[in-house]
Amino acid sequence: MADEKNAYSFTTSATQQITLRFPGNEGFKMWRGGRLAEVTLAYESWGELSASADNAIIVFTGLSPSAHAASSSQDDSPGWWEHMIGPGKAIDTDRFFVVCANSLGGCYGSTGPISINPDTGRRYGGDFPDVTVEDIASSGYYLMRELGVHKLHAAVGSSMGGMSSIAYAMQYPGEIDYLVSISAAAAALPLTIALRSLQREIIRNDPAWNNGQYDDDHKPLTGMSLARKLGLVSYRAADEWNSKFDRARLPADKLTGKRFEREFEIENYLEYNAQKFINSFDPNSYLYLSRAMDWFDIAEHGGSLEAGMSKLDVRKALVVGVTTDILFPSRQQREIADLMRGTGTEVDYVEIDSTNGHDAFLIDDAQFSPVVKKFLDESL
Amino acid sequence: MADEKNAYSFTTSATQQITLRFPGNEGFKMWRGGRLAEVTLAYESWGELSASADNAIIVFTGLSPSAHAASSSQDDSPGWWEHMIGPGKAIDTDRFFVVCANSLGGCYGSTGPISINPDTGRRYGGDFPDVTVEDIASSGYYLMRELGVHKLHAAVGSSMGGMSSIAYAMQYPGEIDYLVSISAAAAALPLTIALRSLQREIIRNDPAWNNGQYDDDHKPLTGMSLARKLGLVSYRAADEWNSKFDRARLPADKLTGKRFEREFEIENYLEYNAQKFINSFDPNSYLYLSRAMDWFDIAEHGGSLEAGMSKLDVRKALVVGVTTDILFPSRQQREIADLMRGTGTEVDYVEIDSTNGHDAFLIDDAQFSPVVKKFLDESL
Repeated sequence: MADEKNAYSFTTSATQQITLRFPGNEGFKMWRGGRLAEVTLAYESWGELSASADNAIIVFTGLSPSAHAASSSQDDSPGWWEHMIGPGKAIDTDRFFVVCANSLGGCYGSTGPISINPDTGRRYGGDFPDVTVEDIASSGYYLMRELGVHKLHAAVGSSMGGMSSIAYAMQYPGEIDYLVSISAAAAALPLTIALRSLQREIIRNDPAWNNGQYDDDHKPLTGMSLARKLGLVSYRAADEWNSKFDRARLPADKLTGKRFEREFEIENYLEYNAQKFINSFDPNSYLYLSRAMDWFDIAEHGGSLEAGMSKLDVRKALVVGVTTDILFPSRQQREIADLMRGTGTEVDYVEIDSTNGHDAFLIDDAQFSPVVKKFLDESL
Repeated sequence: MADEKNAYSFTTSATQQITLRFPGNEGFKMWRGGRLAEVTLAYESWGELSASADNAIIVFTGLSPSAHAASSSQDDSPGWWEHMIGPGKAIDTDRFFVVCANSLGGCYGSTGPISINPDTGRRYGGDFPDVTVEDIASSGYYLMRELGVHKLHAAVGSSMGGMSSIAYAMQYPGEIDYLVSISAAAAALPLTIALRSLQREIIRNDPAWNNGQYDDDHKPLTGMSLARKLGLVSYRAADEWNSKFDRARLPADKLTGKRFEREFEIENYLEYNAQKFINSFDPNSYLYLSRAMDWFDIAEHGGSLEAGMSKLDVRKALVVGVTTDILFPSRQQREIADLMRGTGTEVDYVEIDSTNGHDAFLIDDAQFSPVVKKFLDESL
C-alpha cells in the first residue's frame, strides 16, 4: 500500500491508484526472488478502450517520471511526454486507450521504498526487495488485466521504459502486437553501469542515507544533488551545451567569490536542475530503479541475447536511437534491431540525429513525434 | 618551500628540488593576481644539455603525474611516460636534454597547497592562491632558466600539459622552436567543465575537506574516491571497457551480499583504481589543478582565440587528438591545429584511432610513440 503521507505527491487529479491481483494468493513474486504482499500502481489513462479491448497502449517510463505523461480533461497540467500523447498526436488518444503507470519501485503513488511495509508498519526504505525491469513489466501486465485488456495493441517505452517494453514482450509472448523501444539497451554497457553505479555510491555515501532508513526531514539531499548532476551530464550531449552555454560566466551578483564555487553558467544549470529534482524524488527509488537498469539483460531470458529476443511474438517493432546518446548509444539500438530481425521480428529502425543525447525523446519533439506517429498509424 | 613532512613522497632518488628566482624581489606573481613569496619545483632530467644549450625539451604533465616521467640511471622505477622518454625513444634522451617538473600546485615536491605558507607557518591548504595553466607554464620557464636554458628546442605536453605547452609558447614568443600538444584544448567545453566541476563539488562536500584545512589523518578520502571514479569514467572510452569487462560479475568471494554494493567487474575496477589514487594525491591539489583547466582559454591572451594563438612564434607544431576522447574531443584538437595554421604556424595534425579515450597517450604506446618520434626526429 502506498504511504498516504508520502512527500512526493506528484500524482495529479487524473491519477488513479489500483491494487493489483495476482494468480494464487501469494502476492507479487519478484524476478530476483523477493515478494510483495500487495502492489498498488498509480496510473493515468487517456482515450477510450474499444468494445473489443483491442486498442490499448501501455507507455513505460524512464527512471523518474510519474504516471502523468500527458494532460487530460481531468488535469490540464502538461505531462512529461505531453508532445507525444494526446488527440491527433503520435500516440493518438482519439484512437487508442493509453495507459501510463508510475513504475513499481517509484515514488509517485506506486508501491516502492516509501510505501509502508505491512510486516513492520514502517516504510520499506532500504528493505524493499530488489526491483527489476521484469517486475516493472509484469506489474504493467497485471495492471492492464485489471483494466480489462488481455492483449495490447502496443507497448511504448523510452530508456528504462524501452527495456520494460521488451521485457513485457519476452515475458508475455503474443500479448503485444506492436513494440516501440526508444533509447534502451538489450543489456547495459560497462560505461553505463559505471555512470549509474557512481551515482548510487554518491547517494549511499551521504551520511543521511543511513542505509536507506531516513525520514522526510533528513534525506540524503547532498548525495541526490550530486548524483542528479552526474545523471544530467550522462543524459545530454556535448554539442547541445556548447551552443547553449559555451563558456558563459555567471553574472557578478550570482558569484559568491568563494574559491571553487559556481562560476560558469553550465555549473549553475546543473545546480538549478539538481535542486529542482532532489525534493521531488525518493533517494531509495533512485537507487532501486537505477540498479534495475544495470541488471537488465535479455540474455537472462534463455541464455543468450538471441534466445531472449526470440521469445518475442509481435507483429512489428519500432526501434529508435539517437546519434549523440552516450548512455544508451545508438549502436545499442542497432543491436536491438539486429537481434529482433535475426530472430524473426519485422523492425523499423530509425536513428535520429539530434543534439539532445539520451534525453532527446523528451525534448526533440520535431524529430520523434513523426517517427512514432508513422509507426502507430501504419499499425491500424 | 615544500613541506618536508608531506604525505605524498612520490619523489624518487632522481628527483631534484630547486627554488626559482624571479625578476625583481617580489616572488612569483600569479596570472590571476595572487603571489607566492617562494616557489620550489621538483623536477627530473634525462640526457645532457649540449654546450650551446639548444637541445632542451620540457615535458608538461597532466593533472596528477609527478616529475618522474621516466626511469634513469639514478632511479630505475618506471615513470608515468616510460614508453615515450628514454634512449632511442620518441623523446630521445640520447639527443635531448629532457626536463619534467611536478606542476606548480601539485603535491609531489613542488610548491602547492600542502606546502608551508611562510606567512602563517602552516600549510596553505585552501588558502593557496589560484593556480592557472599560465602559472604552470611560467614556473616551467623559470625552471629552464635555472637549468641554463634560454630557448627550448621543444615543449611537449598532454592533457593539461598540452595546454601548458601552448601557454608557454603564448607567454614567451620565440622561446620554443617545436611545440607538441596532445589531447589538450584551446578552451574547455561546457561538458568538460561540468565533469570536472562535479568532481570538485564531490570532494568539497566531503565533510573532511573542511574548506581545505584538513590534516593528514582526516583527509576527504571518500570524496576523493568518488571524484577519481568520475575522472576515470571521463578519461576512458566505452569500447575499451566493453571488450575488457563487458558485463562480467565479481566472483562470489568478492561480493558482500549487501544491496547496491559492487557486483560488476567494472565497479571493482573503479574501486581498485580509486583506492590506489586517493592516498597518493592531495585533495586540494586536485581542486586547484582541476579548476585551472576550466579557466584556461587562449582567448584571454588578446581577446580572441585567433589573437591568442597568433602570439605563437614556433617553427612547427604537432597536434595530436584521439577519436574516442570525450573529455578533450578530437574536434578540439582540430580546432587547435586550425587556429595555429590560421595564424601562420606550420602544423602536423594527427588523429589517432584508439579505444583508450583521453588516456590513450598513457596507454597506446604503439600509436603515440611513432607520431611523436617522427616529429622530433624531423626537428633535428
